[in-house]
Amino acid sequence: MGSANQLKAFLIGIDTHQEPVIFMRDDCEVCRSEGLAARTRVGVTAKNKSIIATLNVVYGGAVPEGHAGLSNIAMERLGVSPGEPVSVHHAPVTESLSLMRKKVFGHALSQDELTRIVADISEYRYSDLEIACFLSVCAGGRLALNEIAGLTQAMVDCGEHLTWEGTTRVFDKHCAGGLPGNRTTPLVVSIVSAAGLVMPKTSSRAITSSAGTADTMEALTTVNLALADIQRVVRNTGACLAWGGAINLSPADDLLIRIERALDLDGEGQLVASVLSKKIAAGSTHVVIDIPVGATAKVRSREEADRLSFLFSEVGAACGLVVRCVLTDGSRPVGSGIGPVEEARDVMAVLQGRQEAPDDLKERALLLAAHVFDMADNGGLEASQQKARHILESGRAWEQFRRITQEQGGLKQLGNARVRHRVLATEPGTILSVDNRRLARLAKLAGAPASPAAGLRLFAHVGDTVAVGDPLYELLSESTGERDYALAYIAGEAPIFSLQTER
Amino acid sequence: MGSANQLKAFLIGIDTHQEPVIFMRDDCEVCRSEGLAARTRVGVTAKNKSIIATLNVVYGGAVPEGHAGLSNIAMERLGVSPGEPVSVHHAPVTESLSLMRKKVFGHALSQDELTRIVADISEYRYSDLEIACFLSVCAGGRLALNEIAGLTQAMVDCGEHLTWEGTTRVFDKHCAGGLPGNRTTPLVVSIVSAAGLVMPKTSSRAITSSAGTADTMEALTTVNLALADIQRVVRNTGACLAWGGAINLSPADDLLIRIERALDLDGEGQLVASVLSKKIAAGSTHVVIDIPVGATAKVRSREEADRLSFLFSEVGAACGLVVRCVLTDGSRPVGSGIGPVEEARDVMAVLQGRQEAPDDLKERALLLAAHVFDMADNGGLEASQQKARHILESGRAWEQFRRITQEQGGLKQLGNARVRHRVLATEPGTILSVDNRRLARLAKLAGAPASPAAGLRLFAHVGDTVAVGDPLYELLSESTGERDYALAYIAGEAPIFSLQTER
Repeated sequence: MGSANQLKAFLIGIDTHQEPVIFMRDDCEVCRSEGLAARTRVGVTAKNKSIIATLNVVYGGAVPEGHAGLSNIAMERLGVSPGEPVSVHHAPVTESLSLMRKKVFGHALSQDELTRIVADISEYRYSDLEIACFLSVCAGGRLALNEIAGLTQAMVDCGEHLTWEGTTRVFDKHCAGGLPGNRTTPLVVSIVSAAGLVMPKTSSRAITSSAGTADTMEALTTVNLALADIQRVVRNTGACLAWGGAINLSPADDLLIRIERALDLDGEGQLVASVLSKKIAAGSTHVVIDIPVGATAKVRSREEADRLSFLFSEVGAACGLVVRCVLTDGSRPVGSGIGPVEEARDVMAVLQGRQEAPDDLKERALLLAAHVFDMADNGGLEASQQKARHILESGRAWEQFRRITQEQGGLKQLGNARVRHRVLATEPGTILSVDNRRLARLAKLAGAPASPAAGLRLFAHVGDTVAVGDPLYELLSESTGERDYALAYIAGEAPIFSLQTER
Repeated sequence: MGSANQLKAFLIGIDTHQEPVIFMRDDCEVCRSEGLAARTRVGVTAKNKSIIATLNVVYGGAVPEGHAGLSNIAMERLGVSPGEPVSVHHAPVTESLSLMRKKVFGHALSQDELTRIVADISEYRYSDLEIACFLSVCAGGRLALNEIAGLTQAMVDCGEHLTWEGTTRVFDKHCAGGLPGNRTTPLVVSIVSAAGLVMPKTSSRAITSSAGTADTMEALTTVNLALADIQRVVRNTGACLAWGGAINLSPADDLLIRIERALDLDGEGQLVASVLSKKIAAGSTHVVIDIPVGATAKVRSREEADRLSFLFSEVGAACGLVVRCVLTDGSRPVGSGIGPVEEARDVMAVLQGRQEAPDDLKERALLLAAHVFDMADNGGLEASQQKARHILESGRAWEQFRRITQEQGGLKQLGNARVRHRVLATEPGTILSVDNRRLARLAKLAGAPASPAAGLRLFAHVGDTVAVGDPLYELLSESTGERDYALAYIAGEAPIFSLQTER
């Protein structure tokens, strides 16, 4: 339909995340003559590239006449700059949507069908609503085991795939999450790689929590490494502690997780495929998965943990990955620091064998490292735990950690939060439980992880007996505003620490 | 959390349809300190009203500092004007989302649970993604019959409910759609109400088609009537032919249909609940449903039609509504006119018994009117058809139509399209079939229904034999641009008329 539908690209400045969106004027001739209705999917072409975008209508001059407003991701994928010509037309049909509808009708999807759907999603051919539809009909246990394996493989297929020279066995660990302060990864990586196993660990930043491993490691060294740097660090030390975001390991996963989170769906099949696809793409062969189980952790019951453990192991096996799940206590926070810097402080204390090192963090790390050793040489869990303990307590893990951080750019000094506020016990008693979710929320209100030094330092733990005026924890923030937000949150809600009071 | 999160309302000019959206600057302190993440749902409060809105992040000055950009629907529902103060905070939990998740897990929903979900949707407490999730897990035959009935009742409960004085039986008709030119409603209403039955017909405008009954009737009279006017017209004539949009009959349905259409889901349960809830809310007691069946109609197979027919009848019965489904030929367009004015021309020709009146349109209207009579007095279909034919051919239906349109504001003269272009047969042969969907698309490209006189007039019908140069149809538009768009569409695609050519 020629050049009649030509418009100029206009950067509208609205963050549509991963969904390419085009904003067209309500009086636009192109919309009318092409019969393009608001909220439909349209094709947008520039020079030699074409994308599918969701059409939003704007009025009142939000987009200049003769222009088409584009979201950042739309502009980026089209490879155009503001002012360059684009044309708008009916969207080509995304063929795999018919396969998605097959799943809507309850039919199982084959490996090939899942691959086609995931490929289209990773090429941005699905709208957010379509992704929501796909996730909804895959959630609630509607994916069979072979479908989860198919989805895992499909997600691996559409991204980068790392390989590690000179080794056939590559170890990894993962935590199902939900426990503030549970920062075992730097410890496990140091212990395991000190013993000569290869563990190229790439971690994520916090998404909903108060700190991710990448945030904590960033307080200690450089984590934003390009693939070549990661490979050099691993070649020289057998391990790394880097941020995984710079590598395109599972692009479909990022698109799916975003919608999954907005819907709070927690589809188990999706979760298993998400975790395992990233491990496979990262070239791992053996993975230990820490599943904390507790009322305020991510996995809330033993049944749920067993089911997840079964799926991780079976799907892993179907995809050629050895997976071992370790169910751990998820009833309380781990260590004493919450937030990037405070968690780094705990990690350093354990590595250096300092007196204030939190014992629970240390023991969890030893248990997980032991499971890695046991997977590697089948030496039994007890002997493996002794081995791990020896490596940690002899200082070899600390030495290895320094080598890794040296290769990544050197060890940083930890900073201190500007604003500190102690929260004291207002009644005497014994601490019965701590709400993990609300504790993490409190640390976030205080500014973590955006402000690395913000967060909490706990002085009292579950089981401790406190008197009136004893410090429960210190609230750490960079501004009094954030401190006040956090304090308002504490004031307005049930207590985060449940006490059995004395009579 | 006090006045720290106070911002000024700013009308951003982006049509987010029915989803309230708030656009916040990426550097906004409120977002950071409240821990509000992009794409999450947030609470927005102004004076005494609160809504839940989806948070979008903007950058580069799309929203002035200290302001919160609001979509029209957000501003409207908050009752604020630009510049007035609003505050933004964490969204209250929408309780019924846990019920939606129950459905994700395959559990059936009770009447009460469906009512709570639909009430929250109609109060704009669901994001578009959440509505997509709900529709997805209800599609594909996942709603049991009692759930469809529950959904129907829930949709009735959250809107207006009309009552009609002085009668216990209120008749209605509905068409499952997909046939261009199938404009039987004005004829059926005139015939049936001429016989003394009450038929207060409210119709919709075209959404995806080239004309809705309300568009066609608007070419002939005023259809945009307030409820009081509709009631006066019905009191004085026993019928009306109005647009239903001015009455808030099933607000949840409008919200659901929008997402359903974007996903192209066609959930049968949703369709049945949508149609029947509007009939019940409109006070109808007896409904005839025309289901055209054909390869390019909405319902494509006899099996599909039977299934739909079963659901309409059973769900209707469960909700106290007498429903009769009539399966009709959906293989070809009806009448000769396509587009509001051209369809009105056909309707007038049938009412006035003119020679050029399309026989197929007339016979379909008589069949449907006969079914209404048969439902009303159980007189048998043949006798009912004779009764309908007598009313139409004696001119009583035309007289009744004039009374109705008189009450609605008088009968208008039909206009003529400015640009007319005849499409001729390029080879001799017999017309085997016509693609309904592409014919409707052609009429839309020509400008229908936005330009009421735009559309098509057919000169050749299925079964006709044409010679080279015989006119197939006339393309009607208001501008040469639209004509050229329509011509480009014909040129670029397989023929809309399939001919068996002579050898």
